[in-house]
Amino acid sequence: MTQYDLLRQHIASICPLSDSEWDYVAQHFTIRKLRKHQFLVQKGEMVPCEFWIIKGLVKTYAIDCDGKEHILQFAMEEYWTSDFHAFQNQVPACMYMDCIEDSEFFCLKLEDREKICHEIPAMANFFRIKANYGYIALQQRIMSLLTETAEERYNNLIKKLPRLIQRVPKKLLASYLGVTRETLSRLKS
Amino acid sequence: MTQYDLLRQHIASICPLSDSEWDYVAQHFTIRKLRKHQFLVQKGEMVPCEFWIIKGLVKTYAIDCDGKEHILQFAMEEYWTSDFHAFQNQVPACMYMDCIEDSEFFCLKLEDREKICHEIPAMANFFRIKANYGYIALQQRIMSLLTETAEERYNNLIKKLPRLIQRVPKKLLASYLGVTRETLSRLKS
Repeated sequence: MTQYDLLRQHIASICPLSDSEWDYVAQHFTIRKLRKHQFLVQKGEMVPCEFWIIKGLVKTYAIDCDGKEHILQFAMEEYWTSDFHAFQNQVPACMYMDCIEDSEFFCLKLEDREKICHEIPAMANFFRIKANYGYIALQQRIMSLLTETAEERYNNLIKKLPRLIQRVPKKLLASYLGVTRETLSRLKS
Repeated sequence: MTQYDLLRQHIASICPLSDSEWDYVAQHFTIRKLRKHQFLVQKGEMVPCEFWIIKGLVKTYAIDCDGKEHILQFAMEEYWTSDFHAFQNQVPACMYMDCIEDSEFFCLKLEDREKICHEIPAMANFFRIKANYGYIALQQRIMSLLTETAEERYNNLIKKLPRLIQRVPKKLLASYLGVTRETLSRLKS
């Protein structure tokens, strides 16, 4: 299977496209490869694209005025990701995104996304439904931050994303959960 | 201006509709009125609709196992709101939504939203773009929870939503910001 087949299959699982629609849509994506530790987005830079992860693992984070890192999200295969505020409003990024593993992405520019969504209704519905699920995931992350203990957050993460826990270094996982590495080791045992 | 004119104007500000498209779309909305303190959504109940607020103010919150209330969102005129996890997946609500003021809503059922989005491409694009902005707002709320002090959160809220601060009782605003009422009074002065 080529990378393009993977993307088509991903889109078709929500909104099937005809062959001619897909041929047209596919022209608007480009592929980008980055090595582990390279940046996909850096604070202060423009973010022309959103990204679909073909393979790899990306950490999105902010650095506060005391230099402390705060992790917003880990994203892996089949996730759409970007600094969406910077992307949607075409303003400089306020976050960093770097690769925790060698990674490969499809890139889609804002003007191309808007064009294909207005030309191919199935693509408008695809991105609408993905955005709805993304919104729900963020609502749940906020509720988790507001109401759950670190132990509950860890247990929910195991249930929802077991693959992620195996791939993310312990230090980063502890930071994401807002606990020390020692607490995380205790939770894991 | 009727309530329907307000809704049409709201949609048209993002995706204009022809008169015949609007006549068709409008048939799928119903109006609901609630008094102050009435519930729009209660935990454990099904949530058939999402809501567009014609007038009023709604608080969305969860109650943790210790009985403590955690406020996810305040929503007012022209906001789309619901327990979106429960709505999208048609499962019982995990949150409460109650009216802080007498309120009036347009209600849209999930099956009707999907129908009009598949029949009228402009509506698919409208809800897609609204969902994108909603996603960004939640990303910013998470970043704010992770990186900002209560004082920074308060100052940002004044900048972004000055109208909201005037209408929300101090006790609820303090809870939303995660501070005591005393701290809030200090911030306000």
